[in-house]
Amino acid sequence: MTMKTPLHLLFWLSWLLLFFFITFVSATGRLNTPKLGVVDRTRVKNHGGGAGTIAGTKPPSSSNDFETFFYTQTLDHFNYRPESYTTFQQRYVINFKYWGGANSIAPIFVYLGEESNLDDDLDVIGFLNDNAPRFKALILYIEHRYYGKSVPYGSRKEAFQDANTLGYFSSSQALVDYAEVIIDLKKNLSAEASPVIVVGGSYGGMLASWFRLKYPHVALGALASSAPILYFDHITPQDGYYFIVTKDFREASEDCYSTIQQVWSKIDEVASQANGLTYLSQKFKTCYPLNKSSDLKDYLDSTYTMAAQYNSPPKYPVSMICRGMDETPQGTDILSRVVAGLVAYRGNSSCYDTNIYNYPSETSEGWSWQTCSEMVMPIGRGDNDTMFPAAPFNLSSNIESCKTTYGVSPRPHWITTQFGGHNIIRVLERFGSNIIFSNGLRDPYSSGGVLESLSPSLTAVYTKNGSHCLDILNSSPDDDPEWLIMQRKTEIKIIDGWLTEYYMDLAAKI
Amino acid sequence: MTMKTPLHLLFWLSWLLLFFFITFVSATGRLNTPKLGVVDRTRVKNHGGGAGTIAGTKPPSSSNDFETFFYTQTLDHFNYRPESYTTFQQRYVINFKYWGGANSIAPIFVYLGEESNLDDDLDVIGFLNDNAPRFKALILYIEHRYYGKSVPYGSRKEAFQDANTLGYFSSSQALVDYAEVIIDLKKNLSAEASPVIVVGGSYGGMLASWFRLKYPHVALGALASSAPILYFDHITPQDGYYFIVTKDFREASEDCYSTIQQVWSKIDEVASQANGLTYLSQKFKTCYPLNKSSDLKDYLDSTYTMAAQYNSPPKYPVSMICRGMDETPQGTDILSRVVAGLVAYRGNSSCYDTNIYNYPSETSEGWSWQTCSEMVMPIGRGDNDTMFPAAPFNLSSNIESCKTTYGVSPRPHWITTQFGGHNIIRVLERFGSNIIFSNGLRDPYSSGGVLESLSPSLTAVYTKNGSHCLDILNSSPDDDPEWLIMQRKTEIKIIDGWLTEYYMDLAAKI
Repeated sequence: MTMKTPLHLLFWLSWLLLFFFITFVSATGRLNTPKLGVVDRTRVKNHGGGAGTIAGTKPPSSSNDFETFFYTQTLDHFNYRPESYTTFQQRYVINFKYWGGANSIAPIFVYLGEESNLDDDLDVIGFLNDNAPRFKALILYIEHRYYGKSVPYGSRKEAFQDANTLGYFSSSQALVDYAEVIIDLKKNLSAEASPVIVVGGSYGGMLASWFRLKYPHVALGALASSAPILYFDHITPQDGYYFIVTKDFREASEDCYSTIQQVWSKIDEVASQANGLTYLSQKFKTCYPLNKSSDLKDYLDSTYTMAAQYNSPPKYPVSMICRGMDETPQGTDILSRVVAGLVAYRGNSSCYDTNIYNYPSETSEGWSWQTCSEMVMPIGRGDNDTMFPAAPFNLSSNIESCKTTYGVSPRPHWITTQFGGHNIIRVLERFGSNIIFSNGLRDPYSSGGVLESLSPSLTAVYTKNGSHCLDILNSSPDDDPEWLIMQRKTEIKIIDGWLTEYYMDLAAKI
Repeated sequence: MTMKTPLHLLFWLSWLLLFFFITFVSATGRLNTPKLGVVDRTRVKNHGGGAGTIAGTKPPSSSNDFETFFYTQTLDHFNYRPESYTTFQQRYVINFKYWGGANSIAPIFVYLGEESNLDDDLDVIGFLNDNAPRFKALILYIEHRYYGKSVPYGSRKEAFQDANTLGYFSSSQALVDYAEVIIDLKKNLSAEASPVIVVGGSYGGMLASWFRLKYPHVALGALASSAPILYFDHITPQDGYYFIVTKDFREASEDCYSTIQQVWSKIDEVASQANGLTYLSQKFKTCYPLNKSSDLKDYLDSTYTMAAQYNSPPKYPVSMICRGMDETPQGTDILSRVVAGLVAYRGNSSCYDTNIYNYPSETSEGWSWQTCSEMVMPIGRGDNDTMFPAAPFNLSSNIESCKTTYGVSPRPHWITTQFGGHNIIRVLERFGSNIIFSNGLRDPYSSGGVLESLSPSLTAVYTKNGSHCLDILNSSPDDDPEWLIMQRKTEIKIIDGWLTEYYMDLAAKI
């Protein structure tokens, strides 16, 4: 009897530890929201032979026409403390090639920078270049503060020191930055009457839609591509994102979906055996030995997630992965099927880097701050609602982790306070105009997008087969499917309508 | 010959000095923009026998129904530095008396505090109380940050120390404050579906119109009374304000106008004579001896200006002044006529305090900061365009003076960057909805108001004879003229239309 109590205690302690382990690790394991961004940077930098050059990465022929400028930007637009007056140099790039010229009232197409170095986007955003000639438009790309060459405090190192220097890094400040650059440029170019159309994708797409809503006096209209403006404050169910990833795979192949569904426990099972991790490292040809089973699971998780998000024609990563699996002989075991899928997607390689999604980059560092301050997107998954293991979004652990990293707490209700989102139809059906919310339904982020037109001029345009930000990437006449060509045509027709209406209003007043 | 050069020099030097004197003194003399505010506080505090109790100062019978609350407000909504998370207590006052109750979807009428202690406004704002019973509305009054009891840093003294503590005192921060209080209150009262109508006058009217434009997800509509949102960045000609003051007096009496036009040089002439200032002090029965002629001129300037701005029924200050002048015998000299006008307006008194407009108050101190940071309203007057001496608006001397006082520069383009204003019809005719811009054309600030409907639901409502903010002050059934009653009826009919539309939209979605 005396021995039984400690054993009892040990038994319950084990359960308690397990519970904490599952809760904490799974929560922290999902702390990072899936990457946003107009393209999958890991694929741009690591052209897997199988994937080849992905859609939207071919530099436009006009890149020689880009001219770079800098605007002396105010650090804090909303505050009048002396340090708020500090300035930094904000980069913007202009393509004058197609422009109708001063006083021509030709439009200005403005790309609102997202969470990356502007250089990354100049080469992949085709929508402005492709359509500028027809409208004789001036093209302007503006870099987002704290990215690329638009960093305050003289250097990235200084700017990213701590919350004291990062505090000015927010979407509201960025929107005013854009307004100031546009107003100043129009004045300098004697183009005050030129209508401005802003374009953005992903986070930049959110900025584009918010910009038209908050600065209608600066932008006549906005094309917000793949902008999950409803993925805040639980407007969208937390599992919306992974539900679509799952759906994408299941639609590609039921067997593929089911294999992935089973692989997580299979990996854990193998890893728990003697030399299991070594076996898995060899099986998956990892460039570095796996330290724990989650190294491999996280890699697969990211691979499938990014494949779904950037599931672009002509090769369609999800199809490549599933075809690879499905082409294995009947009866092939789960791990071999998964490996076959990876090889089909990434091409034959001497080894595969399972850290590929974890290398720090300007984007990952900047976005980490943004999600720890205001861009709190409650993305998670429950039990059995997706092909992934459960990983519910946990706000309190999210807050704790952010506090540990940056010393300040996220403000999870800020985005809906400042930009709205709840009951968006009721709010906007009689307010605002000239926004295109474009989405591809295969993009997991479309679950947080606007998929229903809110009013005749707040228009949802979506494609059944589209993925993240496809419409604004470089067009590829040889490869673009008909539905993508049609989507872009629809969008430009709507924009044309805004411009025509504007010119008629302008003429009526002269 | 040797003597002639110094004399020459002296002559030109005198001219140069005179030129600088005129330029500098007249410019600095006009540095302060005419007071805004829903009522003339000098008259509230100093009920002159002649003016009696002015319209809008009778406390509403419902004042016992006011309940005071405090919201823990964030110091800086747009920044994530640790100190931005500092909080302060923001006061709001609720009248539950007429409310339909939780889940009743009865509307919420919200008064957005202006540049004063909320206590000052609770007694004079009648629009909400007068109309709440009909709609079973909840009434909410929110105090503006840095006024009254809503001051950060624990005390006014600390908060007003310097630009470091004042920096957070801005309209954009105030708008978010209002959004947060409203969202929080609706949640706490289970009134999430209740439509919100915001009401504000003067600067508070600007805030109301901007609030609907920026936070359509929080407010269904706005009544912006006497909001000169176009008096920024030279959208409105600088002399618009004093042009209307002049017109008001001229319409009341051509002789009165002409007397005032002549009094300025007359005062200078008398003051320059031996014992001239003593004579003027006695003539005007000033409570304290005049130190310089501008003491008297500034007092008259403010008296006429405020009389025009708050030219309310039933007594109409401008008419009182002019009648006083016109009732003097034929041939009465200018100064005596001016004195007679003052006595008629202020009543018989043993002495008159020429400093009455200069005593520091919460409002004057707060507004001084606001005009030295963002509320840069270029109000001035040229030669012969008004009945006043020239005093052109001078941005550089304005900036210099603000820098001297606060150590930071105003941002004269901020308001138009953030809220627009240029080409307002073109910008808003197809954007936004549900704002009433109400004005009285005798209010000098109406020159910077929206006097033309921008669209079917961005409606201008004005009265020919109205003055500043009349429509939202307490109604006075015995005294209110027909046109004022009609104006209020029109406004409430429009608001009723917004509510009906909202309830229909709501029903259609259920």
